[in-house]
Amino acid sequence: MDKKYTYLFSEGNGSMKMLLGGKGANLAEMTNINLPVPYGFTITTEACRDYFKAGKVLSDEMEKQIWDNLAKVEEKMGRKFGDKNNPLLVSVRSGAPISMPGMMDTILNLGLNDETVEGLIKATGNPRFALDSYRRFIQMFGDVVMGVEHYNFELAIESVKQRQGVTIDKDLNEESLRSLIEEYKQIVLREKGEQFPSDPKIQLMKAVEAVFSSWYNPRADVYRKMNKISEEIGTAVNVQCMVFGNMGDDSGTGVAFTRNPANGDKHLYGEYLMNAQGEDVVAGIRTPNPISHLEKDAPKIYKQFKDVCQILENHYKDVQDIEFTIQSGKLFMLQTRTGKRTAAAAVKIAVDMVNEGIITKEDAIMRVDPASLDQLLHRHIDESKEMEVIGKGLPASPGAACGKIAFDAYEAHVRAENGEKVILVRTETTPDDIQGVIASQGVLTSRGGMTSHAAVVARGMGRCCVCGCESLKIDAANKKITLGGHTMGENDVISIDGSTGRVILGEVNMIDPVLSDDFKTFLDWADEIARIKVKANADTPADAEKSRKFGATGIGLCRTEHMFMASDRLPIIQKMIMSDTLEEREAELAKLLVFQEDDFYGILKAMDGCETTIRLLDPPLHEFLPDLEEVSINLNTLKITNGDPKKIEETETLLAKVRSLHESNPMMGLRGCRLGVKFPEIYNMQVRAILNATVRLMKEGLHPIPEIEIPLVMDISELSYLKKNALAVAEDVRRETGIDVPCIIGSMLELPRACLLADEIAEEAEFFTFGTNDLTQTTFGFSRDDAEGTFLAYYTNEKLLSDNPFAVVDRKAVGKLVELAVKGAKSKKEISMGVCGEHGGNPESIEFFDSIGVDFVSCSPFRVPIARLAAAQSYIKNKK
Amino acid sequence: MDKKYTYLFSEGNGSMKMLLGGKGANLAEMTNINLPVPYGFTITTEACRDYFKAGKVLSDEMEKQIWDNLAKVEEKMGRKFGDKNNPLLVSVRSGAPISMPGMMDTILNLGLNDETVEGLIKATGNPRFALDSYRRFIQMFGDVVMGVEHYNFELAIESVKQRQGVTIDKDLNEESLRSLIEEYKQIVLREKGEQFPSDPKIQLMKAVEAVFSSWYNPRADVYRKMNKISEEIGTAVNVQCMVFGNMGDDSGTGVAFTRNPANGDKHLYGEYLMNAQGEDVVAGIRTPNPISHLEKDAPKIYKQFKDVCQILENHYKDVQDIEFTIQSGKLFMLQTRTGKRTAAAAVKIAVDMVNEGIITKEDAIMRVDPASLDQLLHRHIDESKEMEVIGKGLPASPGAACGKIAFDAYEAHVRAENGEKVILVRTETTPDDIQGVIASQGVLTSRGGMTSHAAVVARGMGRCCVCGCESLKIDAANKKITLGGHTMGENDVISIDGSTGRVILGEVNMIDPVLSDDFKTFLDWADEIARIKVKANADTPADAEKSRKFGATGIGLCRTEHMFMASDRLPIIQKMIMSDTLEEREAELAKLLVFQEDDFYGILKAMDGCETTIRLLDPPLHEFLPDLEEVSINLNTLKITNGDPKKIEETETLLAKVRSLHESNPMMGLRGCRLGVKFPEIYNMQVRAILNATVRLMKEGLHPIPEIEIPLVMDISELSYLKKNALAVAEDVRRETGIDVPCIIGSMLELPRACLLADEIAEEAEFFTFGTNDLTQTTFGFSRDDAEGTFLAYYTNEKLLSDNPFAVVDRKAVGKLVELAVKGAKSKKEISMGVCGEHGGNPESIEFFDSIGVDFVSCSPFRVPIARLAAAQSYIKNKK
Repeated sequence: MDKKYTYLFSEGNGSMKMLLGGKGANLAEMTNINLPVPYGFTITTEACRDYFKAGKVLSDEMEKQIWDNLAKVEEKMGRKFGDKNNPLLVSVRSGAPISMPGMMDTILNLGLNDETVEGLIKATGNPRFALDSYRRFIQMFGDVVMGVEHYNFELAIESVKQRQGVTIDKDLNEESLRSLIEEYKQIVLREKGEQFPSDPKIQLMKAVEAVFSSWYNPRADVYRKMNKISEEIGTAVNVQCMVFGNMGDDSGTGVAFTRNPANGDKHLYGEYLMNAQGEDVVAGIRTPNPISHLEKDAPKIYKQFKDVCQILENHYKDVQDIEFTIQSGKLFMLQTRTGKRTAAAAVKIAVDMVNEGIITKEDAIMRVDPASLDQLLHRHIDESKEMEVIGKGLPASPGAACGKIAFDAYEAHVRAENGEKVILVRTETTPDDIQGVIASQGVLTSRGGMTSHAAVVARGMGRCCVCGCESLKIDAANKKITLGGHTMGENDVISIDGSTGRVILGEVNMIDPVLSDDFKTFLDWADEIARIKVKANADTPADAEKSRKFGATGIGLCRTEHMFMASDRLPIIQKMIMSDTLEEREAELAKLLVFQEDDFYGILKAMDGCETTIRLLDPPLHEFLPDLEEVSINLNTLKITNGDPKKIEETETLLAKVRSLHESNPMMGLRGCRLGVKFPEIYNMQVRAILNATVRLMKEGLHPIPEIEIPLVMDISELSYLKKNALAVAEDVRRETGIDVPCIIGSMLELPRACLLADEIAEEAEFFTFGTNDLTQTTFGFSRDDAEGTFLAYYTNEKLLSDNPFAVVDRKAVGKLVELAVKGAKSKKEISMGVCGEHGGNPESIEFFDSIGVDFVSCSPFRVPIARLAAAQSYIKNKK
Repeated sequence: MDKKYTYLFSEGNGSMKMLLGGKGANLAEMTNINLPVPYGFTITTEACRDYFKAGKVLSDEMEKQIWDNLAKVEEKMGRKFGDKNNPLLVSVRSGAPISMPGMMDTILNLGLNDETVEGLIKATGNPRFALDSYRRFIQMFGDVVMGVEHYNFELAIESVKQRQGVTIDKDLNEESLRSLIEEYKQIVLREKGEQFPSDPKIQLMKAVEAVFSSWYNPRADVYRKMNKISEEIGTAVNVQCMVFGNMGDDSGTGVAFTRNPANGDKHLYGEYLMNAQGEDVVAGIRTPNPISHLEKDAPKIYKQFKDVCQILENHYKDVQDIEFTIQSGKLFMLQTRTGKRTAAAAVKIAVDMVNEGIITKEDAIMRVDPASLDQLLHRHIDESKEMEVIGKGLPASPGAACGKIAFDAYEAHVRAENGEKVILVRTETTPDDIQGVIASQGVLTSRGGMTSHAAVVARGMGRCCVCGCESLKIDAANKKITLGGHTMGENDVISIDGSTGRVILGEVNMIDPVLSDDFKTFLDWADEIARIKVKANADTPADAEKSRKFGATGIGLCRTEHMFMASDRLPIIQKMIMSDTLEEREAELAKLLVFQEDDFYGILKAMDGCETTIRLLDPPLHEFLPDLEEVSINLNTLKITNGDPKKIEETETLLAKVRSLHESNPMMGLRGCRLGVKFPEIYNMQVRAILNATVRLMKEGLHPIPEIEIPLVMDISELSYLKKNALAVAEDVRRETGIDVPCIIGSMLELPRACLLADEIAEEAEFFTFGTNDLTQTTFGFSRDDAEGTFLAYYTNEKLLSDNPFAVVDRKAVGKLVELAVKGAKSKKEISMGVCGEHGGNPESIEFFDSIGVDFVSCSPFRVPIARLAAAQSYIKNKK
């Protein structure tokens, strides 16, 4: 039995997208529900795959099936393909299972040549129409099938228009068109060394092969890679009877959405042109009319079209994006597909459709891409205004910002305090820059990837950030940057768009986000459906409040290190680190205690009644001290220039301390709970601060729920040791205050060993979270800071890795370790386990974590709505 | 039913060590085979445990059983404990299941007081003996049971001797002894505020309690920690009838080994003293006689003793360490235990005993501690000469060395070339120092642990090394070191002992190792028994030869990075790294190819017929460039001092390159196969060099078996990618030479992800080795360089970790990952899998790897014999 390579539209249906492509399946579906679709058939994606398997050969069987089907169409239409008197013309259009804008699309009017065009003239009595169709065909076929550069045809048509003295294509007269056709044919011969094929059969076969081959054109490759579409699939080809919108003033063509794709309003939304073919609408030479005008131009057709739209929306239960043509007063549907829409429209349409009874809440939840919600949560650029893009980096943290250029964190801080809006522009940022990041409108760096320090910090606080803008040259010493041929200084304004990575000259117009009631309704539905909960990573009362506003059920990760970076604290912690004795350290820690207690008071108050996981100090101590190289150079300078001896001595002491704390691989050095083990007094101070704050709030009648988290454990021994210390502090607080303050201790699992031994460690832990950033680093042996700057992009480009594992959790190994830990710990006791890495805000990762029984994810406040939606979608997908 | 807390010697046997302790079990065993053992009984370790459980209380039941047993002894002896006429005296001695030299040992003559001593005088007619026994008892009991400082008694006896005008204890007359006894009692009263207990029953109970309590004395704690003995076990107590070696000239006491414990010769080996009690032999006041003299002093006793020794050796099938006493011409055995011996003796005795038919080869293999073989493989210090130890560091790489102090690698290199013997003394070493390590006799560092760079490199080349000598102050600028109060310069000689960590002033006398025939026989037996094979880590032809000499069956790891460090190559690789284009890099690589081909030719020739695993370049490229801080300071100096503009420009270029290669966590950065992916030309050159060398050797009729290893893979994609490149190079070589050169490609598993995915990766690999050093780093999140310098010692001291995981493989997590990988990969195909980290030479780790089916371990050449023995022992243990 031979394979069935072709399907008449009447033979297919809407569910056959993998075989017939999206366009073909929908044409079949419309045919089946008796909508006016011109006859035609689809050549399957299987034919495409077999074509490539055979070494780009159309098999005899394929050709036979094509001609058989064409014969059926001829019969229906009562016209013959290639007939010199009344020729059947066809369109040939690609249609992949997944829409791919990068691919070749359409050849219209196929079947015309010097003889059949005369037949068309006879049959229609409209020589201008026929000749115009012919020249369009040569132009399209020459361009898409034969590869003649488009501008050749443009030059020719321009010169003919000049000769005739007209400016619009449709004003060309018969003579001009005839000479243009000859000229076009000459162009093809000149450019490609072969005659334009006059045989319609050859035209059709070449067109089909060209569509197949377009599957591997470079734009399609790029698109597939970007959208992770398998190259195995192949494309289908639709061969369809031509209908003509350019047959006169009772003809026309247009496109329309059943609802407004920009804001979701329930009105037809689209454009049309009378006496035109498809490409005229989009080419922008004539301005098309809004679809509502059609009511005046052709009231009957408009009503019919509105009905068809309603039928299609009801049938597909979603907004449709429709192409239609009117030929001599008769409406034809050429395409329908799900309408692409903005996030705002998606949410509104989903909510409306539930309220209209068209879809269920679960359907609604599945209709919105979680990542797209990002658009709704940040200020964004008003794209309707003109702007000069001068560079492009990585879209590291969404939103947009404008400001003057600040060259370092301190400067940014000072200028911001004086009311200036600044953009912090750095080669890369360090934890020292935190105040600068806070003070500035946004951050632009020339180095570092999507998860570089600047990116992570900026995302964490919802600050917009563009990083890794490699063409940006920064001359911080002279306070100059150069980008896109512009050299700018501290008083020049730039704008950055963290959603696209664009850097723009001057100030752009910005639009504020407004969260609609629909948005809230929609996310409430998501919460009803989801199993996995969503918490937020928040380090300040402001972030905590934002988290609650965005629907977080708690704080999954409150980092305490940023609290030490404030200008009133850094000197204290530095002095603490420089201390040689326990007594000296404790004296400084006593000062920090006062600050920390207020920090925790504020956060716990904002999170009243919600679990708030506070991680004790995690980074290596040298992060709080100046950079080794910098201090070393300072000392060198001081010595060479015979500087102040006292200053030299101080710098020598500092250098010695910085050097003694310097580590080869600080990520795996003296940090996390190792600090707590070596300097118990630091953690004791933090525990004391948390519990003091808790007591204060309890006295005020509030219900703080602090959870104290020990980071970076690799063995139960560490947790036991540090838990004992913490419980002793709690006992002290209880005795001193008479209040039975809760002291809940848990641990962060972020090392392979901790995951493998989670069942053991669970004995001492009251909760667990996974630090999947660090777990990814150790499982892969990838230092994030280094990998993203050097080889990681290379790995994803060369497909050595399908994703950046810091963006999307690696299920095979990192995920495996998380799964082992969840199974291990939960086999021992009921224990809450969440994920707090960057992955906590990534929908793909959330789906995985949900499937293995993780209890919650925690992400930056601005990603909370995304995670809530992803959590609900995950539940629905996993249920299926 | 009451617990049985006491066993008469006649009730126990030699297998009851856990209950009776080693000493008690052996006394029982000797009693059972009818050797002359004074009557007595053992109080069990269970009694000790219950004593502590009850809060340090001897239960009534215990006391009852003690008195019941003592009554039986009295009956046998026909004398009564505390009898004023002919009192029974006993010794009370501790005896733990595992010999613990740190514990309290012995109280003799218990049962004496002012009355019973008179009975003893009457019964023996020997007042001097009786009084001497009494004063010894007070001294021992006062010291060990009552805690009176020993020197109090020493001062008293010295003053009595002066008063009487004698110098030796045994010359004290009756009067002096009587006054000494009074003085001793006063000392006890003065120091402890209580009377010396005169009631023998109280004496016995206090002595038993003191022995129990000694289980937790600080020395015992330290010893247990050091030897990993559980503190749960407890100690037994032996109460035994006194026999007296000090009853006159037909009495005596001694200790002897059944064979020479220093060299293994089959002769009685020991010492004795006539008319003396036990402690006199070891106290060194009188010089004891060699045991052979006993033949003259007491021929009958000597013959009897020789027979008893033979009986014991045959009975225990091992060398015995025996205590005996002769009382009035009658021989008594007081203790027998397995004799401790040197490694050389252990090997000889084991081989002899197999040849004598006493033990099997498997027994022989179990008799020698693998770690002890180290003593036999390195030059060592002649301990018989005096020397001044001025410092102590970690015994990082065994052997000993003397030389003048060299302060940097280059200096060491130059001075060595001029024929000087130098010790490289550095704060710590870096890969740059490799030439200096090669050129010097040994390495001494003030920082870094047992697996610091210096230690690893030194062990790798069998160079002696002491590291982490913290009291060592190095002033490299002024070429001075200070240690142990001595300040020394470049012309001063020091010696270091890498087996003990000692640093010695001046030159010591050294002894060369001679590997005996017994040693070879012994290790051949080990090879016959072992399942897991032993290969060596070797980077040079000399090391390869040494490996074969020591019995390695192949090279499991040949690192190629050291080859680039030689002075004729470093400039080339630096230029390669500094290149901006592929062409420039390839030009430099072409030069390196010539060197590399010769490197591999030499190694493969030395390993003819043996598998030789060559790992492609692994470390990050910046290791070949100068240090960032150093270059940065150089530039700063040049600029401030208005240096040569050309030099400034050069340094700026260098700095830019060094900075661009600088990484936050180089251990997890652009290294290993990531280099190969980013710069395929580097690996291609190395593969070409390996295959060229192979072809040359094949043409010479040899049988090289190179295995090409891709380091640090985390996914099969990397291996596929790089294997394709390598196979293409092989194809080129085959085409060019017409020789079917083998190209075997495998991979190093050293990341958690690689272990978890070993089953997948196995599809592309022809062999695997585990890099357990890096695997330990990533699994624990421990940077070895940093951890050993900062927190690791703290962790092991505080028992947060039982072992340094870089020395002994962590079975729970690292071992688990290795096991998962072995199971995964071997479920897919037959594939050789070995371990090449430091653990490959650690007996405990070898046993683990053997148990999970690893095929071979690979270690530094000097550890190969140790590993061979450990492998055989592992097989025997795992069989049981």
